[in-house]
Amino acid sequence: MVADLGVAADFDPGLPMFHKKVGRGTANFAVGPAMSRRQALRSIEAGIEIVAELVSQKALHLLGTGDMGIGNTSPSTAIIAVFSGRSVAEVTDRGTGIDDEGLRRKIAAIAKGLAVNRPDPGDPLGVLEKVGGYEIGGIAGLIIGAAAHRVPVVCDGFISTAGALIACALAPAARDYLFASHLSVEAGHAAMLAHLGLVPLFDLKFRLGEGTGAALAMELIDAATRVLADIRTFEEVAIADAQKG
Amino acid sequence: MVADLGVAADFDPGLPMFHKKVGRGTANFAVGPAMSRRQALRSIEAGIEIVAELVSQKALHLLGTGDMGIGNTSPSTAIIAVFSGRSVAEVTDRGTGIDDEGLRRKIAAIAKGLAVNRPDPGDPLGVLEKVGGYEIGGIAGLIIGAAAHRVPVVCDGFISTAGALIACALAPAARDYLFASHLSVEAGHAAMLAHLGLVPLFDLKFRLGEGTGAALAMELIDAATRVLADIRTFEEVAIADAQKG
Repeated sequence: MVADLGVAADFDPGLPMFHKKVGRGTANFAVGPAMSRRQALRSIEAGIEIVAELVSQKALHLLGTGDMGIGNTSPSTAIIAVFSGRSVAEVTDRGTGIDDEGLRRKIAAIAKGLAVNRPDPGDPLGVLEKVGGYEIGGIAGLIIGAAAHRVPVVCDGFISTAGALIACALAPAARDYLFASHLSVEAGHAAMLAHLGLVPLFDLKFRLGEGTGAALAMELIDAATRVLADIRTFEEVAIADAQKG
Repeated sequence: MVADLGVAADFDPGLPMFHKKVGRGTANFAVGPAMSRRQALRSIEAGIEIVAELVSQKALHLLGTGDMGIGNTSPSTAIIAVFSGRSVAEVTDRGTGIDDEGLRRKIAAIAKGLAVNRPDPGDPLGVLEKVGGYEIGGIAGLIIGAAAHRVPVVCDGFISTAGALIACALAPAARDYLFASHLSVEAGHAAMLAHLGLVPLFDLKFRLGEGTGAALAMELIDAATRVLADIRTFEEVAIADAQKG
């Protein structure tokens, strides 16, 4: 299912998607806050509402995240820099494939945004307000909502894990409901996973996941639950120790 | 599909499996060759025949290996020791879970087998004859047969990769048709993959795969081919560079 959190265009209300627009794009965080505090809260609430709607419609056993956003590796990079205390240069990478000059500009813009906004890691909602994106807030809300419903969540790549950082800073118990699907080649992703203490299931050199990592991981988790539930152990089929090799 | 290469019992010929029995168990390679040279050749031929039968029955796009054998980490360990030149102690591990004393005995038995049989890595059929198992020969044949039919093969874990070592030593071109599914925690497996130059898709701390690693990897490869075939690139959907993030 797709959700609109902040596309700067209107969708037909009849489209089969979650209509949760918080704003029409965020503001440039290099010159001021990306959004208002109310919008930050609203984007997280939207994610929580989506999970509640899904749970009310059918049994939800496993939730996978994903995103489609423009320019959203920059806020994600800013978020891990804030929470980890690492330098912007260390956690910034090429996103959709910018060149060296683009990378220099990106690092400068993110560093400027952090200097201008001074986000406080002790105020996760403020971090989202100052450098976040609506989709990142929405994913944070999905994770918090899923944890509240005791539904495990498979986190996709770099953007989704930025949402997980916000979610777990707001609600640390949500961490126990998270699976990391893949390790992105985006440099800041390993820092995010280390911060959360998550081990990714795959390392397939993905950069842009847009939910594919989570989708693959859900197959793997499904298979693992079948192994746990359906495959008998050596003890159960009574293979003697002497026959083991 | 299951194939019998060397179970020391008879199966009902009507069972839906490949009936390719080469012998009723192999001999103890700590005191002499595990099998005759004719049996080594026959086990490889059996694998090649199985692929030919599968190909004749239906379109075969991807083949996954797997094994069920008793005591077959020992021949697999001997095989990687022979091809890599590493010490037996370095590549021997606990198989189904033997204790420290069992591990010492296993290392001693494999080392004795190599001293008694003196397998020559330049004679891959002789390696199989002296320290192999019928299932390992069968898997080697599957790989060679699949490569001959230009069908890629997903190699399961430790035992299957021992088969791949035999296959690629006999027919080096088969290497290009191989995917490694997972990295086994069995110590010799990393040495096998390094020898073949294969990078595993998963590192999920499996020890006993019995085909599960290959099955999971086939799902992943199927998904990857769909991404390649079905997902449009930024260029194709005409997202301008300025909009990339």
